[in-house]
Amino acid sequence: MDKKLPTRQENFSEWYNQVVLRAELADYAPVRGCMVVRPYGWTIWENIQKALDERFKATGHVNAAFPLLIPQSFMYKEAEHVQGFSPELAVVTHGGGQELEEPLVVRPTSETIIGTMYAKWIQSYRDLPVLINQWANVVRWEMRTKLFLRTLEFYWQEGHTAHATEQEAIEETERMLGIYAEFARNMAAVPVIPGQKSESEKFAGAVNTYSIEAMMGDTKALQSGTSHFLGQNFAKAFDIKFLDENNQLQYCWTTSWGLSTRFIGAIIMTHGDDQGLILPPRLAPIQVVIVPIYRSDEEKSQVMEAVQKAAEQLAKFSIKIDTREEVTPGFKFNDWELKGVPVRMEIGPKDVQKNSVAVSRRDIPGKAGKSFLPMENLDQSVGELLDAIHNNMLARATQFRDSHIFEAKDYDSFKQIVADQGWAVGWWSDDRENEARIKEETKATLRIYANEPDIGEGVCFYSGKRTRKRAYFARSY
Amino acid sequence: MDKKLPTRQENFSEWYNQVVLRAELADYAPVRGCMVVRPYGWTIWENIQKALDERFKATGHVNAAFPLLIPQSFMYKEAEHVQGFSPELAVVTHGGGQELEEPLVVRPTSETIIGTMYAKWIQSYRDLPVLINQWANVVRWEMRTKLFLRTLEFYWQEGHTAHATEQEAIEETERMLGIYAEFARNMAAVPVIPGQKSESEKFAGAVNTYSIEAMMGDTKALQSGTSHFLGQNFAKAFDIKFLDENNQLQYCWTTSWGLSTRFIGAIIMTHGDDQGLILPPRLAPIQVVIVPIYRSDEEKSQVMEAVQKAAEQLAKFSIKIDTREEVTPGFKFNDWELKGVPVRMEIGPKDVQKNSVAVSRRDIPGKAGKSFLPMENLDQSVGELLDAIHNNMLARATQFRDSHIFEAKDYDSFKQIVADQGWAVGWWSDDRENEARIKEETKATLRIYANEPDIGEGVCFYSGKRTRKRAYFARSY
Repeated sequence: MDKKLPTRQENFSEWYNQVVLRAELADYAPVRGCMVVRPYGWTIWENIQKALDERFKATGHVNAAFPLLIPQSFMYKEAEHVQGFSPELAVVTHGGGQELEEPLVVRPTSETIIGTMYAKWIQSYRDLPVLINQWANVVRWEMRTKLFLRTLEFYWQEGHTAHATEQEAIEETERMLGIYAEFARNMAAVPVIPGQKSESEKFAGAVNTYSIEAMMGDTKALQSGTSHFLGQNFAKAFDIKFLDENNQLQYCWTTSWGLSTRFIGAIIMTHGDDQGLILPPRLAPIQVVIVPIYRSDEEKSQVMEAVQKAAEQLAKFSIKIDTREEVTPGFKFNDWELKGVPVRMEIGPKDVQKNSVAVSRRDIPGKAGKSFLPMENLDQSVGELLDAIHNNMLARATQFRDSHIFEAKDYDSFKQIVADQGWAVGWWSDDRENEARIKEETKATLRIYANEPDIGEGVCFYSGKRTRKRAYFARSY
Repeated sequence: MDKKLPTRQENFSEWYNQVVLRAELADYAPVRGCMVVRPYGWTIWENIQKALDERFKATGHVNAAFPLLIPQSFMYKEAEHVQGFSPELAVVTHGGGQELEEPLVVRPTSETIIGTMYAKWIQSYRDLPVLINQWANVVRWEMRTKLFLRTLEFYWQEGHTAHATEQEAIEETERMLGIYAEFARNMAAVPVIPGQKSESEKFAGAVNTYSIEAMMGDTKALQSGTSHFLGQNFAKAFDIKFLDENNQLQYCWTTSWGLSTRFIGAIIMTHGDDQGLILPPRLAPIQVVIVPIYRSDEEKSQVMEAVQKAAEQLAKFSIKIDTREEVTPGFKFNDWELKGVPVRMEIGPKDVQKNSVAVSRRDIPGKAGKSFLPMENLDQSVGELLDAIHNNMLARATQFRDSHIFEAKDYDSFKQIVADQGWAVGWWSDDRENEARIKEETKATLRIYANEPDIGEGVCFYSGKRTRKRAYFARSY
């Protein structure tokens, strides 16, 4: 672990793995494809949970917990759903020393079990809407795995709602997509693009799937959260019905939406640099690390007094005082740089004299990111600094994203773009077979339809047909 | 569901089941023995999580997440552990359509997987102590299940710590037991008795197990949280070693401790009455329910204005305004009584005139629990009322508990006590075979050794031998 981190240019994938391991975000578990999320990584997830949970509750949602184990037969009730998920199932066949009469699957997602319960709970229009979320672990038997991005077990929230009308359910689907996009920008400084998925990329069983797509540092796309309009597909499969105001029995309209620990991967690959993580201040487990600098016991007692004073002022932030004696300040600097702490604060004898502190911004390496803050009103100036860091990270990521999206005029230019330049956007005549062909030939997939103001009609870069639709394509994680 | 609730006297067990279902705390899942925790029940759990998590973090613990699936062979590494848990395992034998080379067990508890990771992470005394907790679901294949009290899947936190010295690990075990007891009393108004378990009742693989024991409304005992001193048993089984300050390789000393959704059962059965739940104010999902009372549109507009004013004052509490038009106030009163909301606030035209509100305490039914609070400083008076309710609930439960613990002089009196009077406490010569015999003959188990100041020596109620130990025995859940 003492070797240098590979640069992102040299090997982005290995840079990522090493950063995750060395920053102690996660580790490989003894079971293939499973991960251990270590405290530093889990605190990011707790901060994500808090930010999203507030937003869910503010829009009327409540949390509940549905079972991990689902009778295998439930998966077969919705025809497309089983096709999508059955290759990925982990199956419990024995319990308490006995072979089970019916095998149980470990939930890969919970539409089937939640649908079953909703059918029992919902009787009348007065019971609607049902707006429930759960924070849970799910298991999908993936073949190629990568820490956070694709693991057999992962952690997520899954919202499942039932509505009286199609319109309401569509609005809910869009509302939650909007919440994901707002959260990504305002909390994680990840400038996602929200939009609708194509037929071939949508959730198994959905009418429409929407996602937020983020561009990683290697220009690949990462689907970072999804919101599904399920129509009446699951309501019909699970018999979720209600008596409407005219006493007519109707099927509900349902939605589901989820964001997972994969999002931590999005944060790492959006912001990180060759020194390691750069964590967005509003989700960082440690927002400010204070490193005391001294050479004698006398200096130490002065410095530690100032450190305490600073720490008290910064009580509302998440701070860490690095008091380790066995390593040098230089070692500490590298360590916190690797761990992506947004602000490093040094306090030495000179700072004590000047009644100020020296701060270094993780997002701006070297001298340009250094400044001195007076001890007076330190909480306010640190708050402003953290906001400035957030804004800079968002602006930089947005600039990076926008400078790596190119208009695909024809299939030749398209191929060049998605091979090594970034995302392609272009007119798209929306043919499923063409989409499959493009994927096979270029490894690029249709990420989302462009959600731009109507700009009329154009010529599909692939088929040459005239079309009103535009779409983003990219290689992806 | 419209029939009357059975009284606790008539059928305590059925009263419990009905309260859980009717108050919408939980429901039966389609898989035998599994439960769905509904939003009202899950919010109690969220409040428990918040209260405990604060306490864990204040004592230096951090959260992480370890995998759900554990290689079956790991369970066999600690001899007593496998004996205790192997009859209860759920086993995944297939993943991704293939039979697995080695079956995976769904974690019943995580000592084995966490021990494996600790062995990898811990090298030096500088890495110690490791103080990690996780909030997780676990699965134990129980034969006889009951909502919250014993379900195949349940939710809990499990702390797992590793220390350099035996003394430190013992202190940690005791510290966490103390936190559980303090939490139970101060947050849930459940007056638990903390103490040490006997050899035959301890955790499989522990050196010592401590628990908090609560007395339910039928006088049965409920083990409501446990803290285990694991000695070096798991460190040796999983090779968790560190270099001490003298560069000697040593095994760590480890602990584990857990509290689960079972605790919700303890709350229900400690406080509930024949009308339903009585929830402790500091964990209640709804602390105050406001029921507007009016007969005309004119009254309604006046009343709703006052309701808004009250709600604004009570912003720091968790409140609910019951605006349902389709049911009568009387129906609402019964409903919130069943759901155990600590304070019901009625606001009618007379209250508007008097600039006050009428409040009813759930813990004191009828007139004695009713009073009027001026609208002025309502937040303060409601805060005081909630504290008074907490204190009354704790005092009442303590009084109930203490009046149902009896000194066992001899085996005859013991048998009578545990058959229908409550818990027996008495001198106990601590013989494992006698303990087993008592359990077989009376269904009462040794709950904990008495943790009283040393009161010398006495005669064992069963063996007649002289002994310095005393113990509590009771029938239990």
